[in-house]
Amino acid sequence: MKQTIKIGLFGFGTVGTSVYQVIAKAKNAHAEIRRICVRDIEKPRNAILPDGILTDRPDDIFDDPTINLIVEVVDNSEASYSIVTEALRRGIPVVSGSKAMIASHLPELMELQDRYGTALLYDASSCGSIPVIRNLEEYYDNDLLLEVKGILNGSSNYILSRVFDHGEDYNSALRKAQDLGFAESDPTFDISGIDSLYKLIIITVHALGVYVAPDRVLTYGISTIHDDDIRYAREKRVKIKLVAQVVKVGDSEFTMFVMPEFVDRSRYIYSVDNEYNGVVIRGECYDRQFMFGKGAGGLPTASSILSDVMARRHGYRYEYKKTGYIDTPAYTTDVTLRIYARYAGTDIHAILPFEKVREQYISEQGNYIIGDISLSDLIANRHLLDAPDVFIANIPLFFSDRDD
Amino acid sequence: MKQTIKIGLFGFGTVGTSVYQVIAKAKNAHAEIRRICVRDIEKPRNAILPDGILTDRPDDIFDDPTINLIVEVVDNSEASYSIVTEALRRGIPVVSGSKAMIASHLPELMELQDRYGTALLYDASSCGSIPVIRNLEEYYDNDLLLEVKGILNGSSNYILSRVFDHGEDYNSALRKAQDLGFAESDPTFDISGIDSLYKLIIITVHALGVYVAPDRVLTYGISTIHDDDIRYAREKRVKIKLVAQVVKVGDSEFTMFVMPEFVDRSRYIYSVDNEYNGVVIRGECYDRQFMFGKGAGGLPTASSILSDVMARRHGYRYEYKKTGYIDTPAYTTDVTLRIYARYAGTDIHAILPFEKVREQYISEQGNYIIGDISLSDLIANRHLLDAPDVFIANIPLFFSDRDD
Repeated sequence: MKQTIKIGLFGFGTVGTSVYQVIAKAKNAHAEIRRICVRDIEKPRNAILPDGILTDRPDDIFDDPTINLIVEVVDNSEASYSIVTEALRRGIPVVSGSKAMIASHLPELMELQDRYGTALLYDASSCGSIPVIRNLEEYYDNDLLLEVKGILNGSSNYILSRVFDHGEDYNSALRKAQDLGFAESDPTFDISGIDSLYKLIIITVHALGVYVAPDRVLTYGISTIHDDDIRYAREKRVKIKLVAQVVKVGDSEFTMFVMPEFVDRSRYIYSVDNEYNGVVIRGECYDRQFMFGKGAGGLPTASSILSDVMARRHGYRYEYKKTGYIDTPAYTTDVTLRIYARYAGTDIHAILPFEKVREQYISEQGNYIIGDISLSDLIANRHLLDAPDVFIANIPLFFSDRDD
Repeated sequence: MKQTIKIGLFGFGTVGTSVYQVIAKAKNAHAEIRRICVRDIEKPRNAILPDGILTDRPDDIFDDPTINLIVEVVDNSEASYSIVTEALRRGIPVVSGSKAMIASHLPELMELQDRYGTALLYDASSCGSIPVIRNLEEYYDNDLLLEVKGILNGSSNYILSRVFDHGEDYNSALRKAQDLGFAESDPTFDISGIDSLYKLIIITVHALGVYVAPDRVLTYGISTIHDDDIRYAREKRVKIKLVAQVVKVGDSEFTMFVMPEFVDRSRYIYSVDNEYNGVVIRGECYDRQFMFGKGAGGLPTASSILSDVMARRHGYRYEYKKTGYIDTPAYTTDVTLRIYARYAGTDIHAILPFEKVREQYISEQGNYIIGDISLSDLIANRHLLDAPDVFIANIPLFFSDRDD
């Protein structure tokens, strides 16, 4: 018989409360929550908790020798970093859902796991209930993988769905996403594409064995989307989705970025609506696999944490196998994208050095331009692209021929 | 450094040839095929093979001490059974794609793995390239799972797609499926639902920890589908799909069956067309997960075998954890289904003892009836349902409220 998992839980917000409920429900997890560390112990809680389970002193968890797993769902990157690194240094395995922290510190976290012979699992950090990290690590652990592309942020996708399919205005859709608990505490993360970027960074480590620091990756969000963009997309019978992708380019390189994208009806991600996430894994031989599920919300995230908790019962850890592969590919930004840019007063050619302009439309109401531009130029001019009258979207061109 | 996997391959048809190609391509698998055992060594082969790699004597593989993994993709259940059981008895791990053999002998195969301390992996046996077994075994290994439902046979789905969406006639669609290599060598298996049944039996062991012998499960296929059924479904704006499902019924029981089903537009499996497979995994907390991919064909199947081969490099084996769970649910057929039955001359009430008739339509061209009937009565009368003028389809009612 395997040992019982005795958990010290950090964080008791939406996700933490759901973790508590799910662990209680899952009898066959043979897991129990021994201690819950919160910032404010006096705050009123909805859950009925055993006496003395709450604490505000991290050492009540770290120093408890009966605790053999830490689950960390704190909504604060710095706090998450201290908890996770302290746990690893003490040789205590950790399950974490903190994508911002993990994406920013993954090389160090990998090194700490190695040095202290312990494990950090974080499937919940990417796409909530969809087992994308585990599958990339275990099942797609081979040379056939060519691309991972998807809708990784439930909140921005919810907003786009409401605006696109229900004609709601952007701000009321955003408020709804917050009310429903899909949005991060700072919704800028969702809308700017940063949340998707963090997930993409983590996915890339498990997909291709390469860590790319977040600030090296083009990330452009949906905050400046305008009725004109919606109308344009509708006329073309496509949807605008916020898409994160990492794609092999030839045998020895790959590229990656997060951008709004025109998605046509034939693609799997076209039908990923509301708070759902969808990930397409493309490879030689198997073509495309599509995984779809709830990517946001307390219970879906908690169900993913439960899977990691139970994996620890069997001693599971990520081996980061692909980082040791022969011919690990290199990150390149030397690729050409075709993009749509809608603008009003901004001098668009000054901020977007197109290699070739394909279409241009100028009117009293507004203008757009479609052209080819290198990803490295987009990155170099990234700071200029935040003008409130500008919105940019990717027109898939080189990397996907059909069906994603 | 982990050891190189040295493979003895049994079978060199469509799948075997693809396995050979995929292993050659996957440098990071650190695997090589040492010997290939075929029935007819003189048969001309498309592949260019190293001299002396082919043999027709199984013992050339079993007795080779350098071989540390057997991959078995023989298209014959008896031969597959002898190879797999012999390998397990000799302590050699095996990767197999033989769903018919595995579904029929799983309890014995589990016992042999245990007794001889070795492993049998078979993700390729269910849904080709979709990692359904591995995910059920590893990721959904908890009490939250409520239902697994899907399109598990690429060939019959291809035929239904051609007939339904392209107005082709049934026989020419069947021939095309055979030409394209989607159909089993005996296409009756695809069309009768038996192939889906075998996959469902295997899935149920990994989903709920319970083995149900194939002959205890209602299986009804698509061979008697008629233009009238297609027309009826079109009028109702649904598609007819051959669906396999295993569903928890209350806390302590589950039911399962393979039947054509009316699938409406809101369900994930509605858009699973052609040779694709799609599986919906439903659970408490995460609601529904959808996995979609190529379920038939040499290369998709070989890519799944590659995943199992690489898993062996890390010593992976199924632990059949759920068979040891507290409160493993029991199989029941004491549930009521709502079914559609189209018929001509047959006395429909004599073969289908409806608890309640909901609709009845009688015309010179043909008749149909919709009513509630117990699954155990359907099983008891199963032998009467093969009349060529009768076609039966499930109308989802009790087990799924939305979105699958």
